[in-house]
Amino acid sequence: MAPVGFAGPLAPYLYRSAEQRADRLHHWKIMSEMTADTAGFKHSSLGDEIVERINQLGKISETPEHLARVFLTSEHRAAADLILSWMRDAGMQAHLDAIGNVCGRYEGERPGLPCLMLGSHYDTVRDAGKWDGPLGVLTAIACVADLHKRGRRLPFAIEVTGFADEEGVRFASTLLGSRAIAGTFNERVLTSKDAEGISMREALTQFGLDPDHIGAAARAPSELLAYVELHIEQGPVLEAENLPVGVVTAIAGATRLAANITGMAGHAGTVPMLLRRDALTGAAECITTIEELCRTDDGGLVGTVGYIHAMPGATNVIPGQVAFTIDLRAPTDVHRKRAVTDIVRNIDAVAKRRNLVLKVDVTHENRTVPCAPWLKAQVADAVAAEGYRVFELPSGAGHDGMAMIDIADVAMLFVRCRGGISHHPDEHVEVADVETGARVLLRLIENFRPAAKPAKV
Amino acid sequence: MAPVGFAGPLAPYLYRSAEQRADRLHHWKIMSEMTADTAGFKHSSLGDEIVERINQLGKISETPEHLARVFLTSEHRAAADLILSWMRDAGMQAHLDAIGNVCGRYEGERPGLPCLMLGSHYDTVRDAGKWDGPLGVLTAIACVADLHKRGRRLPFAIEVTGFADEEGVRFASTLLGSRAIAGTFNERVLTSKDAEGISMREALTQFGLDPDHIGAAARAPSELLAYVELHIEQGPVLEAENLPVGVVTAIAGATRLAANITGMAGHAGTVPMLLRRDALTGAAECITTIEELCRTDDGGLVGTVGYIHAMPGATNVIPGQVAFTIDLRAPTDVHRKRAVTDIVRNIDAVAKRRNLVLKVDVTHENRTVPCAPWLKAQVADAVAAEGYRVFELPSGAGHDGMAMIDIADVAMLFVRCRGGISHHPDEHVEVADVETGARVLLRLIENFRPAAKPAKV
Repeated sequence: MAPVGFAGPLAPYLYRSAEQRADRLHHWKIMSEMTADTAGFKHSSLGDEIVERINQLGKISETPEHLARVFLTSEHRAAADLILSWMRDAGMQAHLDAIGNVCGRYEGERPGLPCLMLGSHYDTVRDAGKWDGPLGVLTAIACVADLHKRGRRLPFAIEVTGFADEEGVRFASTLLGSRAIAGTFNERVLTSKDAEGISMREALTQFGLDPDHIGAAARAPSELLAYVELHIEQGPVLEAENLPVGVVTAIAGATRLAANITGMAGHAGTVPMLLRRDALTGAAECITTIEELCRTDDGGLVGTVGYIHAMPGATNVIPGQVAFTIDLRAPTDVHRKRAVTDIVRNIDAVAKRRNLVLKVDVTHENRTVPCAPWLKAQVADAVAAEGYRVFELPSGAGHDGMAMIDIADVAMLFVRCRGGISHHPDEHVEVADVETGARVLLRLIENFRPAAKPAKV
Repeated sequence: MAPVGFAGPLAPYLYRSAEQRADRLHHWKIMSEMTADTAGFKHSSLGDEIVERINQLGKISETPEHLARVFLTSEHRAAADLILSWMRDAGMQAHLDAIGNVCGRYEGERPGLPCLMLGSHYDTVRDAGKWDGPLGVLTAIACVADLHKRGRRLPFAIEVTGFADEEGVRFASTLLGSRAIAGTFNERVLTSKDAEGISMREALTQFGLDPDHIGAAARAPSELLAYVELHIEQGPVLEAENLPVGVVTAIAGATRLAANITGMAGHAGTVPMLLRRDALTGAAECITTIEELCRTDDGGLVGTVGYIHAMPGATNVIPGQVAFTIDLRAPTDVHRKRAVTDIVRNIDAVAKRRNLVLKVDVTHENRTVPCAPWLKAQVADAVAAEGYRVFELPSGAGHDGMAMIDIADVAMLFVRCRGGISHHPDEHVEVADVETGARVLLRLIENFRPAAKPAKV
């Protein structure tokens, strides 16, 4: 299919000149063939087209050097227009909804049937990779395009949603697009302001949306048979397992803690070791304790200290205070809550033994979202039918399914990404794996059987 | 003795009005009496007067809220004028030298004799305490004033030096005053610039000094019999020993290292514990390793990690890189150098075991300055004669003696400070301990016997 949206109003977002456009297209072609050669895989059109579109969408960015596409910006608008045009080319009715999601609908055997909803998000973090989010949207469109080309209609509708804001970069509040569709959008976030002091309400208005009608984006549970999302793994497990795809068991819940240790600052030269109350050596022992508790857990618990700040922070001063964060995730809520209790008890013992004062606050908590067994089984069947070993893994990262669970059963298919790297320009998926993901998703769609009765009412 | 310098050009630095001056004087009087009562000590005039002057000098600051008195500022000038006036009141000839040190001389039994030099610095860090430095200068002046009052002349001159810049706050280069006197001032630092882009050369000129004649401040080794400095301990050892004063064995050398650990950044939710190369858990294990090596050392080694920075530093990202500093000090150079080797070898093993890359650079190194045994013995004799147990301890902090060693044998007397706190507004010395320090110093002066032959030529 011919690329869409290269000329006209979108051109400035994509290329500086017609020459550059031709050059880039040629470059992609070569890269794509090289990748396929390396993988020893004779690629078909599905993977190729998706990768080409991933590259096109990846050019729509705040700056050409670092991919950044955030909520309610001109880049958001340009990306939405491009995706809507691809949806229409795939035979879908398509529109932008009240929060800025792109929504495409491919009717079933007769109009108005409940839908299988597919999707992912098309916003990015700053200095992002181009696969996280868009791969799910563009693969779903490619599958519909394939059905459309064959004139295939199913006993249910298919909808593809590109969520406008999953990452939450601009207003520090995530899952805005999927929450609007699930009817759980919290109107209080409309007063949130971005780094430049523009409120979400103002930004929606400037974008041409009505902040008082976000409720219009909400969908009824009866309209949805299920929600299925394809997404890059963002971790190294599938690569380690030598598998292109994996079946997600649950989106792991997360607890974030802010820990603060207070000791006594002092001169690095004058306070003997045994008289010190060093907040940083205390924090260091806490960090290795957290690591050890997670390493020895056999149920998939992961714990991370990502941020640390020692005060006063001078080379020659014993730190009197240290702040650090703890991020804990586990495949079940029970497991995670037990781990939080264990970890806090253990690091508090470290602090007490060192005559330090530990304070821990929960700053964020997300429940675990389990994938529906009946739906997950159909994803697994599609993987097996494509000739791959069925491998199950939890999602440690958050996804739009965390909001969609309120109106539909949820399942996810993960696609291998190189080195497990995401949220980074080095994020990469081989075209062969894109193809495999698309083939599994297409097979899932064609073989989809709704649950015996609506799962959500 | 009546306070000097309250009226005239210094008044604006000290008080906003005559009423405020009277009020402050009254306040100090009350505070001084309360302190004496608390300590159960009937104070004599030496300690009282020194504390009163410490308080006066402590008012000469960039801002009234936070004590800061840095090199070549109007505060430097005001403090110098006040100290010079106190020197003259004590019967000394006094002048500002070519780098801005205040220099007072009390002749011996005949003019022109070599001197016993006493001193310390009168600059401060920012948000400083008022004791670190000034206590040594003002105690020395008080001792000379006492001799002068009694008409006592000794078989040697006494000089008191207030060094203009020991802390190195403004130009990030320490010991400027004592290096000028020792003749080791490095002219290259004249091009250093402060935070506002003013070079040291410009600042000296604005202050009224000639940057091309700093050499004029240098003293010949033959002019000095010894250099003795009284200083607050800046550590908690004397408090723990329940002693007002201690005899310093050496100014410990220091090595500062910059360590950098590189692992692999990753998503906090998606990378299983066993596949991680977390630079921060690696750094944490290095920090506890350094602490353990220093704690189990029986020779006074101290090691501090005062600064740490984890990158990218987000709650939900495994740190891919961590930078931290290591400050190591020991009473001898051999001991410190062996410790540096041990520590680097041990933390490198930690990094290797975790598949991380460690890089360590030496950023700063100071030799150990031993106190001269003959001079230290006289300090100890004076302590014993005042009725206190002689307790020896190394100085972990740097002092002007590190520069003075090049032209004279050096000794130091430490005075207990509350909680070992320094470089902080809470820095405090009891008036009883000020008194004891002064009595020991006065006794040392009166009993001083030069070394059999000049130690330095």
